[in-house]
Amino acid sequence: MNPFTDEYFMKQALVEARQAALEGEVPVGAVVVCNNKIIARAHNQTERLNDPTAHAEMLALTAATGVLGAKYLPECTLYVTVEPCIMCAGAIGWAQVSTIVYGASDEKRGFSLFAPKAMHPKAVVKKGILEMECAAEMISFFKKKR
Amino acid sequence: MNPFTDEYFMKQALVEARQAALEGEVPVGAVVVCNNKIIARAHNQTERLNDPTAHAEMLALTAATGVLGAKYLPECTLYVTVEPCIMCAGAIGWAQVSTIVYGASDEKRGFSLFAPKAMHPKAVVKKGILEMECAAEMISFFKKKR
Repeated sequence: MNPFTDEYFMKQALVEARQAALEGEVPVGAVVVCNNKIIARAHNQTERLNDPTAHAEMLALTAATGVLGAKYLPECTLYVTVEPCIMCAGAIGWAQVSTIVYGASDEKRGFSLFAPKAMHPKAVVKKGILEMECAAEMISFFKKKR
Repeated sequence: MNPFTDEYFMKQALVEARQAALEGEVPVGAVVVCNNKIIARAHNQTERLNDPTAHAEMLALTAATGVLGAKYLPECTLYVTVEPCIMCAGAIGWAQVSTIVYGASDEKRGFSLFAPKAMHPKAVVKKGILEMECAAEMISFFKKKR
């Protein structure tokens, strides 16, 4: 039995998303996995860093390249609780991440509508992993904001 | 006579691009201008920082939000020597930059082909300012690399 399923790693991304919510940040979390090992984890920090580019995926990618000392991450999988936006999809493309797994879709800002060719042409994209849990974090966060 | 023309600020972005080339980086430079004042300037640092997200525009936007203490830059103009990629266009969109001025087009990686709706719907995009000079930096850099 392999404990390292997509659900396993998405749960770790969800831990990050919940931490974001606790900090008043839009609850998106991401982890980068290499050989079944989490080498980077991050959550959205746009408020704390006062920086609209500080999305979970961007921070996780920058951290992962730092850990590996490599500018490209072709052996890595990025797990993220919400569908990446255009910016993050572009960054994932530059980093040559080979597999992207996301939970909830983002019909307003997701890359698949606005920039479907952002990622590497050979990249594998899986969606809908723990979709309900990932979406629930977002729904609950924005309900409280209103 | 107004000295603060698009050409004036693009020349400043070119200074950054040339600095990038001196450092062995792909020669792209950017400046962020607010009320005719340069509040941030940056050049590509993907090699130095070992980070595929460290494009000139990303670094300039992050710096500008830091200077203004604001997450959005609706009163600002971003000058960049080469057409932004998908990632940077997405970041420009998040930052709500109102005017984007670029020099050379990038037919392989430019946002206008892959993510034409990346920026704010009201953003003004001007292109071709000092186009030859901006393109010449790129051509000369890649010629030396071969």
